Formats: sequence, C-alpha cells, structure tokens
Amino acid sequence: MPNGAQALMKTLVDAGIEVCFSNPGTSEMHFVAALDGEPKMRAVLALFEGVATGAADGYARMADKPAATLLHLGCGLGNGLANLHNARKGKSPIVNIVGDHATYHVKYDAQLQSDIETVACNVSPNFVRTSTSTESLCRDAADAITAARGLPGQVATLILPANVSWGEGGQPCVVPPQAEAPIADSTAIDAVAEAIRSSRKTALLLGGRALREPGLLAAARIAAHSGVVVFAETFPTRIERGAGLPAVERIAYLAELASLQLSEFDNLILVDAKAPVSFFAYPGKQSYLVPDGCTVHTLSTPEQDAAASLNGLADALGAGSTPPVLQPAGRPGRPKGKLTAEKVCRAVGELMPENSIVVDESITSGLLLNAMTAGAPRHDMITLTGGAIGQGLPSAVGAAVACPDRPVLALIGDGTAMYTNQALWTMARENLNVTSIIFNNASYSVLNIELERVGAEEAGEKAKSQLDLSGPVTNYALLAQSMGVHGIRVKTSEELLKALEYALDTPGPHLIEAVVPESLNGVKRKVLPWLLKTLPNIPRPLSKALKKKIAP
Amino acid sequence: MPNGAQALMKTLVDAGIEVCFSNPGTSEMHFVAALDGEPKMRAVLALFEGVATGAADGYARMADKPAATLLHLGCGLGNGLANLHNARKGKSPIVNIVGDHATYHVKYDAQLQSDIETVACNVSPNFVRTSTSTESLCRDAADAITAARGLPGQVATLILPANVSWGEGGQPCVVPPQAEAPIADSTAIDAVAEAIRSSRKTALLLGGRALREPGLLAAARIAAHSGVVVFAETFPTRIERGAGLPAVERIAYLAELASLQLSEFDNLILVDAKAPVSFFAYPGKQSYLVPDGCTVHTLSTPEQDAAASLNGLADALGAGSTPPVLQPAGRPGRPKGKLTAEKVCRAVGELMPENSIVVDESITSGLLLNAMTAGAPRHDMITLTGGAIGQGLPSAVGAAVACPDRPVLALIGDGTAMYTNQALWTMARENLNVTSIIFNNASYSVLNIELERVGAEEAGEKAKSQLDLSGPVTNYALLAQSMGVHGIRVKTSEELLKALEYALDTPGPHLIEAVVPESLNGVKRKVLPWLLKTLPNIPRPLSKALKKKIAP
Repeated sequence: MPNGAQALMKTLVDAGIEVCFSNPGTSEMHFVAALDGEPKMRAVLALFEGVATGAADGYARMADKPAATLLHLGCGLGNGLANLHNARKGKSPIVNIVGDHATYHVKYDAQLQSDIETVACNVSPNFVRTSTSTESLCRDAADAITAARGLPGQVATLILPANVSWGEGGQPCVVPPQAEAPIADSTAIDAVAEAIRSSRKTALLLGGRALREPGLLAAARIAAHSGVVVFAETFPTRIERGAGLPAVERIAYLAELASLQLSEFDNLILVDAKAPVSFFAYPGKQSYLVPDGCTVHTLSTPEQDAAASLNGLADALGAGSTPPVLQPAGRPGRPKGKLTAEKVCRAVGELMPENSIVVDESITSGLLLNAMTAGAPRHDMITLTGGAIGQGLPSAVGAAVACPDRPVLALIGDGTAMYTNQALWTMARENLNVTSIIFNNASYSVLNIELERVGAEEAGEKAKSQLDLSGPVTNYALLAQSMGVHGIRVKTSEELLKALEYALDTPGPHLIEAVVPESLNGVKRKVLPWLLKTLPNIPRPLSKALKKKIAP
Repeated sequence: MPNGAQALMKTLVDAGIEVCFSNPGTSEMHFVAALDGEPKMRAVLALFEGVATGAADGYARMADKPAATLLHLGCGLGNGLANLHNARKGKSPIVNIVGDHATYHVKYDAQLQSDIETVACNVSPNFVRTSTSTESLCRDAADAITAARGLPGQVATLILPANVSWGEGGQPCVVPPQAEAPIADSTAIDAVAEAIRSSRKTALLLGGRALREPGLLAAARIAAHSGVVVFAETFPTRIERGAGLPAVERIAYLAELASLQLSEFDNLILVDAKAPVSFFAYPGKQSYLVPDGCTVHTLSTPEQDAAASLNGLADALGAGSTPPVLQPAGRPGRPKGKLTAEKVCRAVGELMPENSIVVDESITSGLLLNAMTAGAPRHDMITLTGGAIGQGLPSAVGAAVACPDRPVLALIGDGTAMYTNQALWTMARENLNVTSIIFNNASYSVLNIELERVGAEEAGEKAKSQLDLSGPVTNYALLAQSMGVHGIRVKTSEELLKALEYALDTPGPHLIEAVVPESLNGVKRKVLPWLLKTLPNIPRPLSKALKKKIAP
C-alpha cells in the first residue's frame, strides 16, 4: 500500500498532470521522495517560489492543463502569491500544493507555523482544502484537480500536512474527465444579435479563451459581416496572433486612451471578458471606462465555450460563411544604429520565428511591440494578467516546459526582471529554449508617468530617486551568466540583431540585455497626445475623436 | 493644509521613524512625493518587497525602533510576507505600510485588486487597519506606531488607499511615548526563586530581550550563585555575545540534540521565551521537547521587562552581587588550505572586528559558527527567527542602515541567498558596510539530512535532484558584480583571509563566495552522533547523557 505522497503522485499523473514546479522543504520530503516512483512526473526545481508559481501559470497557458506546484508552508506560499494572483486573474488552472506541518504539530506554533488557508484564499477563492488524513488525500486531490481545470480555470490550493503525506494507506483516486463547457444560451445569443442588428456602433470585447484562433475567426466573420469592431482585453492570458489570423486591437492600459477607444460605441458585447476599468484610480478620472449611454451585453461568461458562442452568434447573424479579414504577412525591417526600445521591438518583429511564444512584460519599453509583430509569423503572446510584476521570466520557464519545440521570447522590463531573476537558473538547469530580452532603461519608467498622472506634482529629487534604477545600473548579462545562462549586453541595433539571430539558432537559454533610453522620456504629462501620434496601430474606428485630440 | 501622505510623513518622523524601506507602485506615488518635504525621512529603495520587509526587520533589531515599509497592494505584501513572518516570530517592530487602490476603485476589481487585510492578518494578528479617510489617517498611523513599538514588538499593518493619501486635509498626529514595560510580578519571581532553591537541576531559557547584556549578566549572576544552567532560545532575534559577556548555549535546531540538552532538568524557567518545540514534526518523534517530569515556570513574558525581572530574581535569590562568569577573549586561529565551512567560520572568528553585527543564515555551513566566534570581540548576532529563508541579506541591509558605523557580516547559505538576492543592489545603492559571505556548497544541504530524518528512505536520484543546486552552480561573485557589489570567489583559506581582510578594511559592500563542500556530507542518518562528536561547545551539563549516546 503506498503512503499518502505516493498515492497522490499516482492520482496526479493519472489525471494527466505531468509537471511539478517545486521549491520544497522538510515538510514536503515525502512528496519529493515519491517522485522516483513516477516516471511520468517531471519535477522542475525553482530557487524561489515565485518562479515555481509563475512557471505553473505559463505552463497552463500553453499546455491548456494544470501543472502542480510544490511549496513549503505559508511562507513559501507567500513567496509564490504574486504569481498565483496573476494566474487567478488570467484564469490559469494550477494545482497548488502547499506542504504543511504534521496536523498534530500545528498546536506547538513552531517557527514556520502560519495560517496557510487564510493566505491561500486570496488566490484560490473557490478551492482551498487542507487534507486531514492519508485516506482522504487523493479524493481531496481529485477535487482540487477538478476545480482547477474546469472553466474558468483556477488556482486550487491543496494543503498537504507532512503526516498525511508520510502516512500509510494512500488510495489513488481516478479524476472524472473534464465536463464540456456549455455554449451561451440562445436567449443571450439572440439578444446580442439583435443589439448588433440595431446599431452599427457595436464593439465586441474578447477575453480569455475567446482569443484563440476559433474565437478570433468567428469574431472576425461577425466583424466583416456586421461592421462591429473587435477588441481584445488589455492583458490577455494568451492571444493567438500574427500573419494569417485576424488582427485584434487591445484595449489600452492607459485609461485615457481606452476611453477614447470606446468612446463611439452604443453597445459593448462581452465575450469571456469583463467591462473595462482603469488599472488604477486617478484623481478626478473615471474608474469605469465604458462610456455613458453604452449598453453592455454579455454573450458568454468564462464558464462557457467562447468560440462556440461566437460561432452561434455568427450563425444567428448570417455571418457563418462571411470570410474574415486576416492579417497579411509583413516584417517591420531591420533596425539600424543606436538602440531604442522601439528598435528592439522592431528586431523582434523582424526575426521572430514561426510558432514563437512571446512573453510580454516589457511595460513601457514594449509600447510598439504589438505593432511591430502584427504581421510576423503566427505566434502566441502571453501577458501580465494580474499586474503583479515579476511574472515574465517564470512564465517563460513554464511555456518552454509546456512547448519544448517552440522558441520562447521573453521581453522583460529591467525593473520587473529583478523580482524573479532566479528563473534564469531554472532555464539553465532545464536547458530551456528561452531567449530573454531585458530592456535596461535603468528606471521604473512607468512610475515616472504615473507620478504625474496621479497628480503628485510636488515630487522632487528624493521622490524621483525611488523610481530610478541607475546607481548602480544592474548588469543583466552578468546576472544571467552568474546563473549559467548565456548573457550578452548590446547597445546598437546591429549588435542586437546579431545576438538575437545567434540566440534563436542556438538551443538552450539566452539573455540579451538591451541598453535603451526610456521610451517615454520627456513625455510625461503629454503622454496621451504623444501616444496617439506615435502608435502606428492607431485605433481604427476612432479617427474623429482622435483627430480632435491631436489636432492642436 | 497637507495632503494625507504629507501629514502621514510628518506623523512618522515626529514619532522617531526615520527610515522607510520601499518598493512603491502607482498607488503609493503621493507617499513617495511627500518624501521631499521631510528631510528627516530616509527612503531606501529595494528592488523586491522581501528585501524591504527583511531590511525593516534587521533595522528594528539593531535600532530598537521600527522603520516603515512601503509596499504596493496585496501582491507587494505577498512578496514581503515571508520576511514579515520572520519579523513577527522575532517580535520585531515594523510599521508596515501597504498602499491600496482608492477606496471607490475597489469595487471594480481591477487587475491588482486583492484582499490585503486577509493576507496581512497572518503577520499582523493584532493590528491591521485600512485607513478610510484622510482626516483619520494620522490617528490610524499613530495607533499603528503604538502597536508596533510596544512590548512585544510587532508588525503593525496600515493599509493606505491612494485617495486617502492624495486627499487634502491631512492632520498630523502626535504619538504618545511608549509605556515602560513592567517587571514580572513578585508572585512569579518568588515562585521561580523557590523552584530554583528546591532543585539543583534547573535551567533558565532566555529569549527575546533577555539576550541583551543586562539580561545576560543577571542570568549569569543567578547561574554563578545557584548553579542553574542558562540556555538561549534556538533562533535569537538578537543576542549580544563575545569576549566579556556571559556565554550562553543555544538550544539546538535538531530536536534530538535539544532533547538531550534538556534531558536532565526538573525545572525549566522561561524568560521572554517559549518552551522548546521541534522545528518540524518527524515520524515517531516528540514535537514538544521539554522532558516528562520537567516543570515549566514563566518568570517573565514578552510583554514584561526581561532584564529587570531577571535582576529581581537575582535579588530574591541573594545573587545580586555574585560576579557572573564571563567569556574570556580568544580567537580560533587562522585556517589553512582548502576551504571548508568550518574554516570559513574560523576565519570569521579570527578576523571579525569589535562591534560587528553578525547576520547568521548559514544553515548547515554555520554549524561551528557559534563555537568559532565565542571569544571574538563583543558583537551582536541576528538569526533566522521564523524559519523563512531569504532573511539574511535583507536583514543585513537593515542592520547596516541602523548602525552605519558598525561592520556587518552576513553569513548566508547558497540556497537561502537566492531568495532575496536583490538585497545586493540596495547594499550597492546605499554603499552599506556589509560583507556577505556565501557558503556555496551547491546544495540545499539541510534537506539532504531532513530527507532521511523524516524517513523518506525511498528517495532516489530524481528526488535528490530537487535538493541539488549544482548544474548550474550559481556564481555568487558574478551575481554580486551584476548588482554593483564587489564580489570575489575563493576556494582556499588563504584566499578567504585575504578577501575578508580587504573587505573589512574597505568601506562599502563586499561579497565573498566561499566554495565549500557540504558540512554534513556523508553524515546523513548518523547526524546526531556526528554532531555530538564534532561540536566543540558540547552541551556542558549533559556529559552523562552525551557519553552514553556517543560511547558506541
């Protein structure tokens, strides 16, 4: 009869969970020992829990199924919390296993004792369970797996006391297959179809699973047939894009710009998405970005099959056979001369191979990334769903584990790269095909904008030093080398192109540190007009509002 | 009239809070802007929240007063949680300021929305408050400061919504002076005195504030007079030690060894300490380490003045004028040849200057640190109070900020160093006098022992790879250099001595990566007999139990 950990391991692999991103401690040693008995389980060691949880998120986004994590008590969970938050917001499925003291040890309040359930409920609002006996462990695990991989995906936290793990009499459990997600009900489809027919000023807002090819194609058919405008949510969990797929404009991060994008619509149709709100509050500005007088409809919820619902809508509108408009192939051309963030994005658009996975946590440096890669070969893009920075490098680890044959390009701001830099070690340990590009502008650049957007105008030198990452300027190439990753610092476009070509041709992890000026340097309070002038994929349907805004 | 943030800043500095360890985001921009108006507030930027919270802990331990933190919403708090846990367990005072969305923005469930209070209550069980208006903010802050710096010290969490911060009409508040801690009541003192008189087999267990000079001297007088044995808790928040102070044996981490230490006592007297329990549970082993038949008495609680209570006890016993036994000066001699962890500890004992602050997170590599530094010049030692690794480097930052004229020596295991390696950047930014020594044995060495202690005997290669940090071996010298810290890798005693002498002579931060074999390599299941043979400061009163144990 297996012990609890061994039975749990069997339950996991029988349910198709094949990867565990781990950072174990003493209380997880039986789970670790059980790894050897299960050849189907791959254990990927992280040197910080935020790497393990972010990797599980990235893995789930690309594998469309959960990985397990293995964290050490409440403090390990704390270290992993930010990236579990991102996973929660992105509806990524994760079976989040947190080791705990033996049940009888809890009352002694030993050094590492803390209230794990309370911390966990923040990221696992629907499933936190402490398994209290070896006998029931696998049923608890089965429930966690079922919860995690249902629609919408979620972080299900299973707390695993050490004695439940080491106890004899574990009973592996079969996890029932995942239920098929239902299509939106016909009342909702008919109501949305009616709204579209009644007005030309309708926008479809796609989120979550709607941003994969089937959903995008259905939405594009509807757009071509009925003249609606299709938007994607600001921070997609995963969006399929590039040449041959419909191009979709994303709602802007900047509330002022998002309001402009939405300003002319009478109807906003949500498809696995929520109505846009401002990322932060700003004095005197709206938090809710849907314009007054615009009616919000829901076609399908995250519990439903977005693509099937969109196809249902297309059929209801008679758009089922309308050909969708697809993005033509096109590369932006090789950049030249002294590097800027824009030129880095251009180089990526120029060189990225077919089937790349682009992890975008480039913040201000990536302003032109979408434009520069719009016509690149077909790829997936993963973004920062929950706003907790430090997601990009770990997410790249997970994506590369999920898709070993696809190149992963992680585009990361220098500030964000530091939070979970330990991901580089795991890339080296697992020899992952990840090329990380760090935009080193030596600044929390976005905060220089935000400082003024929130009206903190009295900011002086001392305040600004809190946003300044020069003195010392981190050397990310050295940082990568210290963890066994090939790292190089580049300052010109030519150096970058050479380094990127080499990285894409040479298996294993690479890091390219691109030394760039701040994208928004000197822009500050004029950020909106600047953006409107600069962004080449200017919101198509907004020309009037836009013209008025940038005319002076 | 100041805005909320400005009034808060004044309230903090007027209460003597002069340092803020920060990692801000958009919702904290007004607090950041208010820094310029308060020359008395020093802001120390961290590139990861765990660095900020660990630094606040280290600062509090050495400054004996709280610093403020500045964290960005629930995810920033999550990133800082592990080191706040360590602070909670060490009873360190911290005014933990967590920015939040504007109160009216919460309902929109924007990307970074999470339940901050729920996460915070884990580390701030007695004080979590969301300030709901600019008018009441400074009263809330005053309550937080009062809560933090009372006895026992604690982490008081003040959640600061952005609009409370930017609102006009802030009213700075005067914080009442800290109440004096009471002495143990005479009934407790008399009962303990009676217990000591009635038996020669009594141990005093000192924790918390009792481990400073006044408490140690009083305890040593009692020991010299009454023959009691004095122990220190396993992981002191701060212990004063070295030549000229009483030497105190610490209760061992290893439960088996701790049980031996305590095995012969009839009475255990707690002074600002709790009765020893095992760090983890192990199958078939006791969690509670006080032997059957030993009576536990409490002289003073963490709410009381430990030194005054010990002096009261000394007087009650007639020991007030008994001269205490003090540690004679003595250095262990310079190590020679190929480096081992023991030789690193020897070099530290040989070279550490008077008034050093030793931050010990060396785990297995530091087994002989206490022995090797026992007769070194007087110094303070800070340890890992809550078991959440990644505390050492941040704590060293805080200690160095609190005591700019004292050399800080941070002795850190390689596994633990990775969790919060971003602390190195802050050391460089602030030009702190910290010499970090990383014991690079390329292993989570302690887990190799724990794997067998918990009885996970079936562990094979795959399991062991989860404890193995080779492949790649991190280069900590390069890692330090990447963040602007002078870093060097050494492999011999001679190289180490030279590097350490240079570092101690040269202001600013240094990192010495000591490449060492695992201290316990090959020891495994025989760890207890091995320790008993090896530890030169073998528990003095245990000779009989010890002899029996190691005789075969």
